[in-house]
Amino acid sequence: MLGCCLENVRKQVPLIHNITNYVTVNDVANVLLACGGSPIMSDELEDVLEITAICGGLNINIGTLNKRTISAMLAAGKKSNELGHPVLLDPVGAGASKLRTETAISLMKEVRLDVIRGNISEIKTLAQGSGTTKGVDADVADAVTEENLEEAVAFAKSFAGRSGCIVAITGAIDLVADEKTCYVIRNGHPEMGKITGTGCQLSGMMTAYLTANPQNKLEAAAAAVCVMGLAGEIGWSRMQEGDGNATYRNRIIDAIYNMDANTLEKGAKYEVR
Amino acid sequence: MLGCCLENVRKQVPLIHNITNYVTVNDVANVLLACGGSPIMSDELEDVLEITAICGGLNINIGTLNKRTISAMLAAGKKSNELGHPVLLDPVGAGASKLRTETAISLMKEVRLDVIRGNISEIKTLAQGSGTTKGVDADVADAVTEENLEEAVAFAKSFAGRSGCIVAITGAIDLVADEKTCYVIRNGHPEMGKITGTGCQLSGMMTAYLTANPQNKLEAAAAAVCVMGLAGEIGWSRMQEGDGNATYRNRIIDAIYNMDANTLEKGAKYEVR
Amino acid sequence: MLGCCLENVRKQVPLIHNITNYVTVNDVANVLLACGGSPIMSDELEDVLEITAICGGLNINIGTLNKRTISAMLAAGKKSNELGHPVLLDPVGAGASKLRTETAISLMKEVRLDVIRGNISEIKTLAQGSGTTKGVDADVADAVTEENLEEAVAFAKSFAGRSGCIVAITGAIDLVADEKTCYVIRNGHPEMGKITGTGCQLSGMMTAYLTANPQNKLEAAAAAVCVMGLAGEIGWSRMQEGDGNATYRNRIIDAIYNMDANTLEKGAKYEVR
Repeated sequence: MLGCCLENVRKQVPLIHNITNYVTVNDVANVLLACGGSPIMSDELEDVLEITAICGGLNINIGTLNKRTISAMLAAGKKSNELGHPVLLDPVGAGASKLRTETAISLMKEVRLDVIRGNISEIKTLAQGSGTTKGVDADVADAVTEENLEEAVAFAKSFAGRSGCIVAITGAIDLVADEKTCYVIRNGHPEMGKITGTGCQLSGMMTAYLTANPQNKLEAAAAAVCVMGLAGEIGWSRMQEGDGNATYRNRIIDAIYNMDANTLEKGAKYEVR
Repeated sequence: MLGCCLENVRKQVPLIHNITNYVTVNDVANVLLACGGSPIMSDELEDVLEITAICGGLNINIGTLNKRTISAMLAAGKKSNELGHPVLLDPVGAGASKLRTETAISLMKEVRLDVIRGNISEIKTLAQGSGTTKGVDADVADAVTEENLEEAVAFAKSFAGRSGCIVAITGAIDLVADEKTCYVIRNGHPEMGKITGTGCQLSGMMTAYLTANPQNKLEAAAAAVCVMGLAGEIGWSRMQEGDGNATYRNRIIDAIYNMDANTLEKGAKYEVR
Repeated sequence: MLGCCLENVRKQVPLIHNITNYVTVNDVANVLLACGGSPIMSDELEDVLEITAICGGLNINIGTLNKRTISAMLAAGKKSNELGHPVLLDPVGAGASKLRTETAISLMKEVRLDVIRGNISEIKTLAQGSGTTKGVDADVADAVTEENLEEAVAFAKSFAGRSGCIVAITGAIDLVADEKTCYVIRNGHPEMGKITGTGCQLSGMMTAYLTANPQNKLEAAAAAVCVMGLAGEIGWSRMQEGDGNATYRNRIIDAIYNMDANTLEKGAKYEVR
């Protein structure tokens, strides 16, 4: 199933419109190419409607948000909705500033999102901001661990149900959930946190997976998480003495480039809850 | 001749002003350094006139166009014209949106461009947009192949004649033409398309070649295309098992860094038509 | 002492707010992670006050200055002052345009800067622009060499005294000075100049060093310069045939990632004047 999702990306070469931050944008583009997709970047209001229309999916990332691009995000999101394209939101830094939190919530309200992908703090912020201020959400600890896993899974499903989106929470343990089903994924390597933008890269790749697998979005999102984590493991296994995070960054993208269905099926470590 | 163009860049270290997209800008800067030039980036209207004045050439790339930078592009272009600096236009995405197409056409009208470098679709858009909507232009297939080569060469020369620019169309086969002469270049490797921004990188490097070879702009543009393609071949030959597009990107820039006149003369695969 | 500064960064993982250019921003982020810090980028006026407040230090770099971000720089700088956070200014291109020079001077006037880090031309511009138009400043040659070293040290101390900042002038020989003391540092490798943004990277890392060593800012700034230069030496020693500036860029960041106190203490080449 996961391998099939990967092969659909390579076969269909989905064109993905990215409105993303300028910190990690080059890596997002190269990861999209590595996984079999094709990237376009455009963030100007006058430009985004036409660009979104020629693409298959939309990746919105608020990492270096500015006032000019917010209206472009909303317009592109609505247009993608009209066209039936998958839309992913990466709410980078939601909770760290009012502008980021409010923009993410405004995107949730005005655009029908297929997936929200972030770390647990960002996702908790959105879960609380969109209505509940108490309850299970606020009690979920800031990292998903084996100890609080059951609670975290329940939180992910609950937020997925309320928001109507697939919720992907990435960290040491990754969760990809809709209202009923949650993939718990244990691929990856701790040093991935020493590379800027592995989350942004995943969001770009996940949008390609959603676009190429419209009938199986939950599996597609989980497959993208497994690919990223497994690439982190393969990349780390190729590190040599003296290598550091710059080389590791390249090795991970290289591993995505070389990933095939068989490697993914064998290497993916997940359970469904 | 091509080797001489290369050596002029290394001797003169031309300073190039780049108004370019934020996706591939870092690679453009490193490629300019690799080939022997020196990069400056500036896209603010209040800043560009002085920056252009201290540079030797101007590279305009509309890859992540926004309203703020369009006026800076026009102003810098006109100033470069006043100063006799070469100006290159990379019309990224012309044809994909009205803003991009119109901006490219407006730059063609208001600035005297030395070179327009793009893929065949972008160049066709500009050829049609600037007056002709029928004729040879629209009949050129979207990829230059051995089968349609003669037609494509005629199109490149014709558009070069009408526009008064050198026209560089890059793809599997590259064409670099003025009204009378067309270099047909067969360097490169298909996997270069799996790296974001090899076109942008080439535009940056080509501007340095134009600047250091003001008396031989056609040859200089062709030389830059050969360097890029040959670097793609050399970079590919150094790839090892497990390497992918991230490593390939680095290997290509490394090969540009190490390119010398002799390697270029021996490795360049071109004919003049 | 230098090793202690390094270890404080690794222990404290300072979060650094960067308002920086889009050319080298990805490398700045990866260098901050490599040295043990953590990066956040934000340049929108409505966003920066909250982002600065959750950080420990602020790195302002005017490399691709635009009108929108100038007010964000000023606001973030003042907020950091209020909070007692270290602030570093990297005046990229000061002297090359009026906008850059005036913005840098305005930041010097309105924000209490802990460090100004630039090349000798940028620093000379600021020294002259802030009052003196004649005198020792204007006579300092444009590169710091063994021949003019004494004069350059006197200039650095004098400007540090007048501006109330630590002044870090980087080049073949690096100077890090307050009013009374100047570190003269001879680490590094000439080919570092063939990589875009090693100065920007150093500014990011230096801000992390300042933040983690608030009682020893002069030593911290000097330590960061030594780390960068030593990483340039170590990175170069790992270069293989066919490698160039792209691989060198990665090797330097890798060397920062692997740097420890012992390596730094043994490899740092400096004298105090």
